[in-house]
Amino acid sequence: MYYQPEIETITRSELEKLQVKRLKETINIAIQTPFYSKILKEKNLSADSICSIEDVRKLPFTTKEDLRNNYPFGLVATDMKNVVRLHSSSGTTGNPTVICHSQKDLDNWANRVARCLYMVGVRDTDVFQNTSGYGMFTGGLGFQYGAERLGALTVPAAAGNSLRQIKFITDFGTTTAHAIPSYATRLAEVMTEIGIDPKKDTKLKTLVIGAEPHTDEQRKRIEELLGVKAYNSFGMSEMSGPGVAFECIYQNGLHLWEDCFILEIVDPETLEPVEDGEIGELVLTTLDRDAMPLIRYRTRDLTRIIPGPCPCGRTHRRIDRIKGRSDDMFIVKGVNIFPMQIEKILMQFKELGTNYLITIDTVGNNDEVLVEVELSDLFTDDYSKLQQLTKSITHKLKDEILLTPKVKLVDKGSLPLSEGKAIRVKDLRNNK
Amino acid sequence: MYYQPEIETITRSELEKLQVKRLKETINIAIQTPFYSKILKEKNLSADSICSIEDVRKLPFTTKEDLRNNYPFGLVATDMKNVVRLHSSSGTTGNPTVICHSQKDLDNWANRVARCLYMVGVRDTDVFQNTSGYGMFTGGLGFQYGAERLGALTVPAAAGNSLRQIKFITDFGTTTAHAIPSYATRLAEVMTEIGIDPKKDTKLKTLVIGAEPHTDEQRKRIEELLGVKAYNSFGMSEMSGPGVAFECIYQNGLHLWEDCFILEIVDPETLEPVEDGEIGELVLTTLDRDAMPLIRYRTRDLTRIIPGPCPCGRTHRRIDRIKGRSDDMFIVKGVNIFPMQIEKILMQFKELGTNYLITIDTVGNNDEVLVEVELSDLFTDDYSKLQQLTKSITHKLKDEILLTPKVKLVDKGSLPLSEGKAIRVKDLRNNK
Ligand SMILES: [Zn+2]
Ligand SMILES: [Zn+2]
Repeated sequence: MYYQPEIETITRSELEKLQVKRLKETINIAIQTPFYSKILKEKNLSADSICSIEDVRKLPFTTKEDLRNNYPFGLVATDMKNVVRLHSSSGTTGNPTVICHSQKDLDNWANRVARCLYMVGVRDTDVFQNTSGYGMFTGGLGFQYGAERLGALTVPAAAGNSLRQIKFITDFGTTTAHAIPSYATRLAEVMTEIGIDPKKDTKLKTLVIGAEPHTDEQRKRIEELLGVKAYNSFGMSEMSGPGVAFECIYQNGLHLWEDCFILEIVDPETLEPVEDGEIGELVLTTLDRDAMPLIRYRTRDLTRIIPGPCPCGRTHRRIDRIKGRSDDMFIVKGVNIFPMQIEKILMQFKELGTNYLITIDTVGNNDEVLVEVELSDLFTDDYSKLQQLTKSITHKLKDEILLTPKVKLVDKGSLPLSEGKAIRVKDLRNNK
Repeated sequence: MYYQPEIETITRSELEKLQVKRLKETINIAIQTPFYSKILKEKNLSADSICSIEDVRKLPFTTKEDLRNNYPFGLVATDMKNVVRLHSSSGTTGNPTVICHSQKDLDNWANRVARCLYMVGVRDTDVFQNTSGYGMFTGGLGFQYGAERLGALTVPAAAGNSLRQIKFITDFGTTTAHAIPSYATRLAEVMTEIGIDPKKDTKLKTLVIGAEPHTDEQRKRIEELLGVKAYNSFGMSEMSGPGVAFECIYQNGLHLWEDCFILEIVDPETLEPVEDGEIGELVLTTLDRDAMPLIRYRTRDLTRIIPGPCPCGRTHRRIDRIKGRSDDMFIVKGVNIFPMQIEKILMQFKELGTNYLITIDTVGNNDEVLVEVELSDLFTDDYSKLQQLTKSITHKLKDEILLTPKVKLVDKGSLPLSEGKAIRVKDLRNNK
């Protein structure tokens, strides 16, 4: 059984007690490494410094740079013979980041993933197909071990080859699949092309999507195309992989497993906590890792805590889908703005395409934000309608980012199409 | 500890008792499936028919065709909810073959692979890098689980990207790697290209090679290039994957784990057992599989039992490296001939290249074998030397295949180069 009500619906005060206990244990493990030993001793900190969960804020942050500077094994807190697996990032720039796991770490990780899957109704009678890459990419082995732990019939399809994926789905009666959102859409398209109706000809009912930023509209589209419920999954290799936070059946944000992680959202500039509900950078401390605990790891992912209780009864707080990277944030007139906020608004207009560009520039003594966005194929060139649309977009954007941008509608195809990751923000200010 | 002397050095009589006991259990499990129920009942066979290990010969064979005809789950002997993983072949022609595993099957498999690795000296202090593809290919998850079980630090590098593989090897201090022979050679080449001396700049000491036919010469070359000991591994997805048979440190054939499999070598034509030491088709019966036991599975792989005891003390019999596929066998004048036998001889001549073609034709009332083989770049065109070489090859071939072939030396590049799998045998006889 991978539903543990005593943990998942634990009272906040009991949860905080558990967190304090585990944080102390984590500090005692981490301090075995030269890295944490040094930075904790410099601040005269130890497990004894932690009396309440708020005391986590006394602790120093850990960054991706720290991982790279201590590459590959400088942050391993155990004898290397206890390490049974490592996952390494591709490290396209500089040293890769490497995370090491003990057998117990892998067990805890598999249990967490099993808990996530169980939460959205996956059982030992389900057939779980994983379209992740395997090997170093944690979405492969992470979901493999978790779904096996749950007792589902796992189909380790790995990435690519859509026709083969579809053959597996139909032949093996796949009920649950893990896919990045764009690949889920692709599978639906190929099914249609080859005359397979996802709703009638497959047993698919549950999809796990993650690893790629996407909007709720994309999620709904995937759900409609495939006739499934699609649940958001959040994880990162530094936090082992998948299984950090996951949506429950209410699909109203991702429960972050606070028995395994301490959750903080901080202002990426000041590093101070933001108010509940405000967007900031997700900071996580591992609470159940032996081989390589990480304290206050700056994930660079932007999200917010969704305030209030969840109807499912779980007390672990929910984070919103990832809003982008803290590196993408820009500040105008003292306000933190994230491109994702703007994108979210633009996506609400059917008249608009998906390509947009944000330019920030100094005009006179003021910083101004220009949002250029392409029209969709279908939209009219009726001037008054265009003017009305511009007004409406401007109004909604102001509500979201708290200042009034200049909005410019442009023809489809007139903005630069970047290969790979789109460049969404141009900052032309001198005083930035 | 993954050395179990009570099992690995068990006396033959005790081993046979264990096999009989497990074979009976296996029949009782298999008979739950419509397929085995039908064919066993037709012959009035049950677990009670087995009194000694020789009684295995009463049982019907299982073929790849049987797996395909019962695709995907027709041979599963347990409730599907107990199945936690499947591996499927790529199925380029016809239905793929699918093997289903229970949690216990995966455990047994991981233990077998751990036993193999332990046998050649891999320990929990080792760093094990797996260059197999993951996902459906059993060399990925098979070695992953086995090496993790053993407690080694596993590096799930997966296939491809030689520069990255080499970075992992040097940065993580990889001591043991699993690779197909051609890829091991490739890694050595790339290391040399980028100025890394495998012997000085890496900690590599043990290589596990398999999945691709290769000669002992190739093995020795790999050992010299990389400064390692390279051990042969034999497995196939129908028998779970790697971990079926493995060389010990004496490198004199592969101990096949007879506590987990019943080993038979049969004549592919008559299906009768061959003498110990004679080449024939390997037939295996699983003894520790719950979800999908296979009885007398015709592997199509050609090998022979290496007679006599092994100095390591293990009593499980040794098979020779795979000599080819039984489908490739041809019969001339009542003698079974395998292309691999001919290839093995040709490889011994430095004057020859690697491309050859065997043609069998009826000349008068006789079947004759013509072996055409390309000369290497380096060889002279001195006629008397060519004649002498031809004589010498003919002589050695006769010793091996027991009849005298016609040998024709041809220029490099004059034989057809097939893409993918080379066509080595042309049978032009009418009465074949
Ligand atoms: Zn909930
Ligand atoms: Zn031996």
